[in-house]
Amino acid sequence: MLSWTCPAPLSDQPRIVMGHGGGGVMSAELVEQVFAPAFGGPVLSALTDSAALELGGAQLAFSTDSFVVRPMFFPGGSIGDLAVNGTVNDLAMSGARAAYLSCGFILEEGVGIDVVGRVAEALGAAARTAGVEVVTGDTKVVEAGHGDGIYINTSGIGLIPPGVDLRPQRVVPGDVVIVSGAIGVHGVAIMSVREGLEFGVEIESDCAALGGLVEAMLAVTPDLHVLRDPTRGGLAASLNEIAAASGTGIVVRERAVPVPQPVANACAVLGLDPMYVANEGKLVAFVPRQHAEEVLAAMRAHPLGAEAAVIGEVVDEHRGMVVARTGLGGTRVVDLPVGEQLPRIC
Amino acid sequence: MLSWTCPAPLSDQPRIVMGHGGGGVMSAELVEQVFAPAFGGPVLSALTDSAALELGGAQLAFSTDSFVVRPMFFPGGSIGDLAVNGTVNDLAMSGARAAYLSCGFILEEGVGIDVVGRVAEALGAAARTAGVEVVTGDTKVVEAGHGDGIYINTSGIGLIPPGVDLRPQRVVPGDVVIVSGAIGVHGVAIMSVREGLEFGVEIESDCAALGGLVEAMLAVTPDLHVLRDPTRGGLAASLNEIAAASGTGIVVRERAVPVPQPVANACAVLGLDPMYVANEGKLVAFVPRQHAEEVLAAMRAHPLGAEAAVIGEVVDEHRGMVVARTGLGGTRVVDLPVGEQLPRIC
Repeated sequence: MLSWTCPAPLSDQPRIVMGHGGGGVMSAELVEQVFAPAFGGPVLSALTDSAALELGGAQLAFSTDSFVVRPMFFPGGSIGDLAVNGTVNDLAMSGARAAYLSCGFILEEGVGIDVVGRVAEALGAAARTAGVEVVTGDTKVVEAGHGDGIYINTSGIGLIPPGVDLRPQRVVPGDVVIVSGAIGVHGVAIMSVREGLEFGVEIESDCAALGGLVEAMLAVTPDLHVLRDPTRGGLAASLNEIAAASGTGIVVRERAVPVPQPVANACAVLGLDPMYVANEGKLVAFVPRQHAEEVLAAMRAHPLGAEAAVIGEVVDEHRGMVVARTGLGGTRVVDLPVGEQLPRIC
Repeated sequence: MLSWTCPAPLSDQPRIVMGHGGGGVMSAELVEQVFAPAFGGPVLSALTDSAALELGGAQLAFSTDSFVVRPMFFPGGSIGDLAVNGTVNDLAMSGARAAYLSCGFILEEGVGIDVVGRVAEALGAAARTAGVEVVTGDTKVVEAGHGDGIYINTSGIGLIPPGVDLRPQRVVPGDVVIVSGAIGVHGVAIMSVREGLEFGVEIESDCAALGGLVEAMLAVTPDLHVLRDPTRGGLAASLNEIAAASGTGIVVRERAVPVPQPVANACAVLGLDPMYVANEGKLVAFVPRQHAEEVLAAMRAHPLGAEAAVIGEVVDEHRGMVVARTGLGGTRVVDLPVGEQLPRIC
């Protein structure tokens, strides 16, 4: 199926376009065709999430993310919050509680130092909330017109608890698919403020650090199969990546996917499908059936999982594909997005 | 002395200027007045280098650097080489051999995918040379006019061997100051190609990974006191940072500092002092006197330390200051640079 939606091969597209940063097919092609062959190495094959490593006898997760979101301040957060939570959440998806963060700033000449200060304070506050320490940093300055105020890279390391092994390859038919709450909120919050749209209710980003929620889930059983935070490309991209990597099929009950009414309304106006809209404080979990009920209860007992819901299951049919059962009893294929639906949302 | 050369306080300079990225007084002020208070934490106080951490029983070094050098390709290297060697060297200055790297790209819409590929291949080749594995990555794309082709962040982790404790606070009067080779080469190589200058000889960047050289030095004794790679701000900035942090004085014999003739010529034309010009494949070591001769011999036996030289010593006078003995028998104070001598050299 995916080949139908692929853009022309990279050789016919000699220049970077916004879609290469969108977390969809074009992003994956750039990694597979340009970066992976150049870097090599076995661990890199899992470039989409954090890497699980052994160093000095410790089982570590290591992850990196750059943040270029516009505007830098938005309802519910800022680039400083995102820079912490994005990397903390990547580590959490390996089962690791983030311990240490690095922070690299690329500042554009002319940006107000007060703005830098506000971003740094948001970043520091988010780090304290997440229980992670910023331990090393770097600042570069580029000439006016060669940046956009502030870009931030954070990288993080954390310990993976014994017995935890979260990989798409562990997903098997029968696994239950659970989301931790309403989807589509972050992307719509960014778009509404960027485009000056009003939807009656101000939609705030769900930006949050998920380390505590994951800890609560792993306290039920270390035997979860995979966790993902559906950021760029939304829930659709995460589910497709897991279906492809596990070689299983995924069925989603469309009506079971929690979408807040203001987000649904905004998506209708903007012509977006909430399944493809980025989240920043949500996760999707693939849980062995025998643990699903207890894991769901543990999620709902956590403030960041209060609206957790079972949305589907893993099946032995249509391997590598995600299929949604619609409210009317029909089915539709949920494709991997090709390029960029909402640029620069993280 | 330093207060004489300080620019106005940050409150009177409400906007970021290029000097805030120069590795001198202005960079330090930005860290001390904006980032450190926002982030807090004890480890962050050593923001200039890699952080030494304990995690899961392992002694780790963790470091980050963003790379914005222009042009992206220059005699002797590229932004891809720098992105590996810069972070590998920061780790080496903690005594750690780099084990794993992360790599975050910020690509500007419109940059050629072939250019991205060439940079990625240079990065991969440099990683293989340095013996470090790129294990996790991220790609963001920004609109044309909001970037400059390719920006790269790398972060790295490595193990600190037992007994190694490299900190400016360990520097004491009597320590011998050794550089691993000729200084000023990288900055002059970048400037000459950027400005289209010719100096008779093409000057190639000294960009290299110093992990192996440091290993050879530590094989003599783990009891080295401090190592620094004098990048932005050059040897002058590194020596000043160590003098300030250790509360000792440093005396440098100007004639003992190796400066290749083409670099000296270029600096004369450009009005630069080689002591302030960035290096990318050199280190300065503070070594207890009883080990100095043997460490120097080990350095000279390594390809990247063949021109290693003793350039000075640590004294109990003029604490916090660096003083150069000139060839004519006089002395001059070597100040911390204020802002940016050569913008975007790394």
